[in-house]
Amino acid sequence: MTAWTKKDLLGIKDLSVEELELILTTADSFKEVSARDIKLVPALRGKTVINFFYEPSTRTKMSFEVAAKRLSAATYGLSKSGSSLQKGETLIDTILNLEAMGPDLIILRHSAPGAPHLISKYTQAGVVNAGDGAHEHPTQALLDAYTMREKKGKIKGLNVSLIGDVAHSRVVRSNIFLLNKMGANVTVCGPATYLPKDIAGLGVKVTTKVDEAIEDADVIMMLRIQLERQGRKSLPSLREYFDFFGMTEKKLERSKPDAIIMHPGPMNRGVEIDSSVAEGPRSVILEQVTNGVAVRMAILYLLLGGTRNEDTN
Amino acid sequence: MTAWTKKDLLGIKDLSVEELELILTTADSFKEVSARDIKLVPALRGKTVINFFYEPSTRTKMSFEVAAKRLSAATYGLSKSGSSLQKGETLIDTILNLEAMGPDLIILRHSAPGAPHLISKYTQAGVVNAGDGAHEHPTQALLDAYTMREKKGKIKGLNVSLIGDVAHSRVVRSNIFLLNKMGANVTVCGPATYLPKDIAGLGVKVTTKVDEAIEDADVIMMLRIQLERQGRKSLPSLREYFDFFGMTEKKLERSKPDAIIMHPGPMNRGVEIDSSVAEGPRSVILEQVTNGVAVRMAILYLLLGGTRNEDTN
Amino acid sequence: MTAWTKKDLLGIKDLSVEELELILTTADSFKEVSARDIKLVPALRGKTVINFFYEPSTRTKMSFEVAAKRLSAATYGLSKSGSSLQKGETLIDTILNLEAMGPDLIILRHSAPGAPHLISKYTQAGVVNAGDGAHEHPTQALLDAYTMREKKGKIKGLNVSLIGDVAHSRVVRSNIFLLNKMGANVTVCGPATYLPKDIAGLGVKVTTKVDEAIEDADVIMMLRIQLERQGRKSLPSLREYFDFFGMTEKKLERSKPDAIIMHPGPMNRGVEIDSSVAEGPRSVILEQVTNGVAVRMAILYLLLGGTRNEDTN
Repeated sequence: MTAWTKKDLLGIKDLSVEELELILTTADSFKEVSARDIKLVPALRGKTVINFFYEPSTRTKMSFEVAAKRLSAATYGLSKSGSSLQKGETLIDTILNLEAMGPDLIILRHSAPGAPHLISKYTQAGVVNAGDGAHEHPTQALLDAYTMREKKGKIKGLNVSLIGDVAHSRVVRSNIFLLNKMGANVTVCGPATYLPKDIAGLGVKVTTKVDEAIEDADVIMMLRIQLERQGRKSLPSLREYFDFFGMTEKKLERSKPDAIIMHPGPMNRGVEIDSSVAEGPRSVILEQVTNGVAVRMAILYLLLGGTRNEDTN
Repeated sequence: MTAWTKKDLLGIKDLSVEELELILTTADSFKEVSARDIKLVPALRGKTVINFFYEPSTRTKMSFEVAAKRLSAATYGLSKSGSSLQKGETLIDTILNLEAMGPDLIILRHSAPGAPHLISKYTQAGVVNAGDGAHEHPTQALLDAYTMREKKGKIKGLNVSLIGDVAHSRVVRSNIFLLNKMGANVTVCGPATYLPKDIAGLGVKVTTKVDEAIEDADVIMMLRIQLERQGRKSLPSLREYFDFFGMTEKKLERSKPDAIIMHPGPMNRGVEIDSSVAEGPRSVILEQVTNGVAVRMAILYLLLGGTRNEDTN
Repeated sequence: MTAWTKKDLLGIKDLSVEELELILTTADSFKEVSARDIKLVPALRGKTVINFFYEPSTRTKMSFEVAAKRLSAATYGLSKSGSSLQKGETLIDTILNLEAMGPDLIILRHSAPGAPHLISKYTQAGVVNAGDGAHEHPTQALLDAYTMREKKGKIKGLNVSLIGDVAHSRVVRSNIFLLNKMGANVTVCGPATYLPKDIAGLGVKVTTKVDEAIEDADVIMMLRIQLERQGRKSLPSLREYFDFFGMTEKKLERSKPDAIIMHPGPMNRGVEIDSSVAEGPRSVILEQVTNGVAVRMAILYLLLGGTRNEDTN
């Protein structure tokens, strides 16, 4: 089996199929830990893991913290407020200062695309991209892939449709990269104003018709509408959006009976997805969250201890 | 001895006298832990405890965190800011997401009465109500009861007077429920505008005269005036309030010599209580805080491990 | 060797040379812990350490938290927002409440000079001053001294120049106290508006000419300009400040070739220091941060366990 050799997890684009598969396989063995009565393994005891979130987040930040603590790492939370960034310090100087305290891993969410790649050059610690602007969100794509594989038994050959605000979604980009590498067929769907002109160049089928996106799909992934963008002229009203693109039981009648419904969260019920679908029997939305902990445990473990363990064999 | 069987601690109203006594007795054995040089027992090792506070709090939040850490649980803090609630996610969706990460216990403070009861239906984790609007604050009533029992040797038959803003206090409600169940005689006292019309229906004596409330009391509990409510026409000025209802050495001359003074904190010195009383020999205000840690350790222990331990006998 | 006997670390002014040396020597043995693969020693297991920061901070707060966690203490973070101080509670009442929960150590940063000294009277816990207004910042002076000793082999006899906003800097004050006690020769330098009139009375050489401050210096410590103070009439523009007082390679030509450059952080590059100097071969700025963790581990260890361990000999 491939050993993990990279210092960081910055984006899906950089990873080989073997590396993607190594993460998914490693996650299998960690999923069981969170089902135990004592949810704790000593794998990362004495390691220093910094959760550095410039943007608000519940599930991603919490998921990383849960993953790190269940591996026995010491965790530290940093946000923009309360940090010296308020005093005008640059991101690089902040990272250099953290680096001087000997962290083992820095998890960064930042509004600037490429911020995790930038800081990686200034620290020996592993860096995990927890979302950088509209660029990548690799751990989300990995937990999505883990969930598809778990539910469908494979990823290769699956028809996966991503529906909604394709243009502004880092989740879409990371998913397209991953699904292409692992041999799935990807369709993206949304109103024309939500579809970037060059998106077909990423090797996906593009449509503005939900029916087309749904009919052969094995996986239907609904994307979050960022309500803060509403009000711009180019966008439809929420009601109109729901009518055309919101996933309902009615629209799902055209889908394969065993198609699963995913959503990266947080959901806007009644906008991109109807509550009856979100809570329906095909929804795996909360299983995505559960799998997120296992996948992030795998990533932390591989970045901080994986190679070392392989070396001892 | 009764075993603990409930999943949650939502309010005093739901608890039997046996359950109340079980918590108080269990707290006895934990009080000693915080007096040790090494304040740590492994009882909840590997457990995931989430401290979810929508409203600001020092003592209650800190008290729960201290209790959880001294039991070796992994603790997580969530507040409204920095969570996806800012992105418009509903409380229930937030809880469903947390639930998917496998928490063992969620401690919730929320401005909406019944919020802990609501979330309990969406999680298998134990839920502890750390204050829900003006409804209940059961752990405060339990630490108050623990302190009364410790100082007076019993609760049954005690005369307990609660003085101040009776109308807006969740502490009052939980205390009345508990003291009634355990056989104490409760008097509430405050300006007419602070006394809800139906309060006598809860089985308490009602008076607007402090002298009446004080004279036979074994326990005098002063209630916090919420300064943010001041300025409304129905309320007296702070100076006037202090003159009529603020506890002073002078007013205490009419009380039994061994009556104790309590306050749930945070205190407004010079409003509902004079500094000389707060710091005087009868004050047990800071002992309430100390006992709060022991009582919360007991609650966490019973909710997360109590039944299991009983089963092994 | 001297045993540590003080309850608190409030300021350099209170410490003897023997105590300063004990801290520096103890830090030597902890520096190695942060270089290990498993950065963890059990010295403070079961201890309760509260990080109470009224003012924003990244490096100092994080440094204390890293130090405490690497010693296995349980750490708690408190800030002004989210605490009952928002409800009008006084600092002393907040501390009395924390005290009732049995903390072992309270680390306080506060805008009021003397705040740590004040709270020390209300708690049996050790108190560490992490910066009180423009008064003292003793752990910064100690990590600076550790770095000087490490780089220069001694402190006695060193020529140390502190350049910049001398008037508003707690770092300057603590450094002057420490360096005088340990036998270094201190020069302070800055624009006249940044030099308090009575500063010479602290036993330092005073100059407004950077060349004079630099020429014989073994250690050149640049001070942070607090940008929030700019705009007052008494201060020069940032460009003018940089021209006269900002440290550049050009100005450094007049210094001894082996003089080291220090800065307490966070830096304003292009204001008090040029990037080429900050990153140049003589800069030990990030080593100061690394040493900060070791020095704070030593302080936590001495305050919480030092005497006890000596007693067992």
